[in-house]
Amino acid sequence: MGRVVIDVMPKPEILDPQGKAVVGALPRLGFTGFTGVRQGKRFELEVEGEVTDEVLAEARKAAETLLSNPVIEDVVSVRAADGAAGAGA
Amino acid sequence: MGRVVIDVMPKPEILDPQGKAVVGALPRLGFTGFTGVRQGKRFELEVEGEVTDEVLAEARKAAETLLSNPVIEDVVSVRAADGAAGAGA
Repeated sequence: MGRVVIDVMPKPEILDPQGKAVVGALPRLGFTGFTGVRQGKRFELEVEGEVTDEVLAEARKAAETLLSNPVIEDVVSVRAADGAAGAGA
Repeated sequence: MGRVVIDVMPKPEILDPQGKAVVGALPRLGFTGFTGVRQGKRFELEVEGEVTDEVLAEARKAAETLLSNPVIEDVVSVRAADGAAGAGA
């Protein structure tokens, strides 16, 4: 059973309030040295068989039509997951 | 200027309503062949200088305390971004 990983991020020119909140909270918790944060989405799609080029093409189309809003977001990556994704850090 | 990428996903045993909604919507839009979807979060943290091991360690601590809820989420990856992340697909 294969897995496709899709990353979606807010476009660089779009304000990202979640990222702004995180970058404001980090120094208050003692984490210095981070100057900017952007928050996006990560999807893991399970497929029945192998992750072929056709599956990746279909996943990219789904990413661009359903999983992201092309006005404010970029699909930055569509790839086959390597090994045991979803496992602990 | 370096960039750290952090991936956070809901734990496998936790219900993921966003993922369930996506997996229900995919076949209605003509995308068949996907049997499951999990939706998580992706953070990009900018740092002033190089992404050293110390920076990664601090980013991991931030990921585990601020960017994820350890009761329901796993930090699946903390890594230096390769090249021009955030650029178009």
